[in-house]
Amino acid sequence: MSGETRQWTAALLVIGDEILSGRTQDKNIAQLAHWLNEQGIRLSEVRVVPDNVERIAEAVKALRGIYDYLFTTGGIGPTHDDITVDAMAEAFGVPVVIHPEARKILEDYYRDRAGGLTEARLRMARAPQGAELIRNPYSGAPGIRLGNVFILAGVPDIAASMLAGLTGKLEGGRPMISVTVGARVAESEVADLLREMEAAHPGVAIGSYPFFRDGRHGANFVIRSEDGDLARATGEELAAQLREAGYDPVEGGI
Amino acid sequence: MSGETRQWTAALLVIGDEILSGRTQDKNIAQLAHWLNEQGIRLSEVRVVPDNVERIAEAVKALRGIYDYLFTTGGIGPTHDDITVDAMAEAFGVPVVIHPEARKILEDYYRDRAGGLTEARLRMARAPQGAELIRNPYSGAPGIRLGNVFILAGVPDIAASMLAGLTGKLEGGRPMISVTVGARVAESEVADLLREMEAAHPGVAIGSYPFFRDGRHGANFVIRSEDGDLARATGEELAAQLREAGYDPVEGGI
Repeated sequence: MSGETRQWTAALLVIGDEILSGRTQDKNIAQLAHWLNEQGIRLSEVRVVPDNVERIAEAVKALRGIYDYLFTTGGIGPTHDDITVDAMAEAFGVPVVIHPEARKILEDYYRDRAGGLTEARLRMARAPQGAELIRNPYSGAPGIRLGNVFILAGVPDIAASMLAGLTGKLEGGRPMISVTVGARVAESEVADLLREMEAAHPGVAIGSYPFFRDGRHGANFVIRSEDGDLARATGEELAAQLREAGYDPVEGGI
Repeated sequence: MSGETRQWTAALLVIGDEILSGRTQDKNIAQLAHWLNEQGIRLSEVRVVPDNVERIAEAVKALRGIYDYLFTTGGIGPTHDDITVDAMAEAFGVPVVIHPEARKILEDYYRDRAGGLTEARLRMARAPQGAELIRNPYSGAPGIRLGNVFILAGVPDIAASMLAGLTGKLEGGRPMISVTVGARVAESEVADLLREMEAAHPGVAIGSYPFFRDGRHGANFVIRSEDGDLARATGEELAAQLREAGYDPVEGGI
């Protein structure tokens, strides 16, 4: 593979009893996917595992070897169920230490607050030995980077501000461009057309996403490519063919 | 482990370029988690992989051996990107066949519809050899069962109606009961209390889920146990201790 076509890949490990129990609706997958697209990195796998040190460590070891980058969300707060740092240290075979810079951030934050920097709060400065902090431009709480692993908060807004601190800093390729064309058609009626269209355009993937709304069938067809011109040209061609076949395509999707 | 404490486990494999690209917000994880809780089965892992036969087959082989049940969502429609059945057949080492009962359902459905049962539509009757259909009480489209693997649609409403056809039919244990107590408190202030409360109640897991809303910190504490009485008693004890510590606990959560 030449340098130009090198694809950068990432996995996300969601540390989440609250996701597996159904209590919380995950929002980090879609959020990270969008951010990675902009960095020219493709989200290639997601795993959700329980709040269990062994399960997390095992998944970290598996995923960080397969993909260029691994992101985790969840389990980095001050309570007993926040064990991501311990699991990461185990996966890397390093001890957990109090990160001096993180300690300083917490000292400043709690200096004038009731109770001060308690032992529980100091837990938030724990990091695997050798880790760096991920600067968070919007709130104090930093994320943690260890090698190709990026440890983010589980609360989506905080995860987003940690990602903002990483924007433009990871090596990636070309952003993935997607073009959507929708039509009020049962996808089975255009299955052949879609298959032929994809086969005729190497470098393009076409997904078909059906829906049933207001008593009528419809589908959105998503054309994805790293070549934006190719994606747009394929979208226009698909719209033209749908129009010719008697459907009323909606560019941008329905 | 005695029969009484046997835990039944399941994994979910989301087949989903549309999830990994960030285009679609997943709703099947939370939906399946809730349904499994009611069946006394614990959702223990989720993976999201791309629409790729090898990747799907590899994940199916890994997950169905670890957990009692494996569910998949997505990739069972009539278009070229619907490859779940092919991947499943590969994972099980069986051929893909036209399932006679599924064919009959489609024949009936398309008998009076324009175009009739085209080759593209007949794709929806494809199944790995040896599979049974999962009855769908709300719409025609059946799911597919092969051994301990349950193949569901990706569209959440259709997946839900396939699950309805399975309700009460899978062997499971006791449903997981959860009790939530919320308080307007930074979780770091009650970290010790939570840790001690969990340690004092074997068979109970306590999760802490912080939020920041209307300019104030807060957290919900979720007590989970297969013993409903124990979960409720622990919840009441936690609420009492929070009240004693000067916080104003909200039973049921904030």
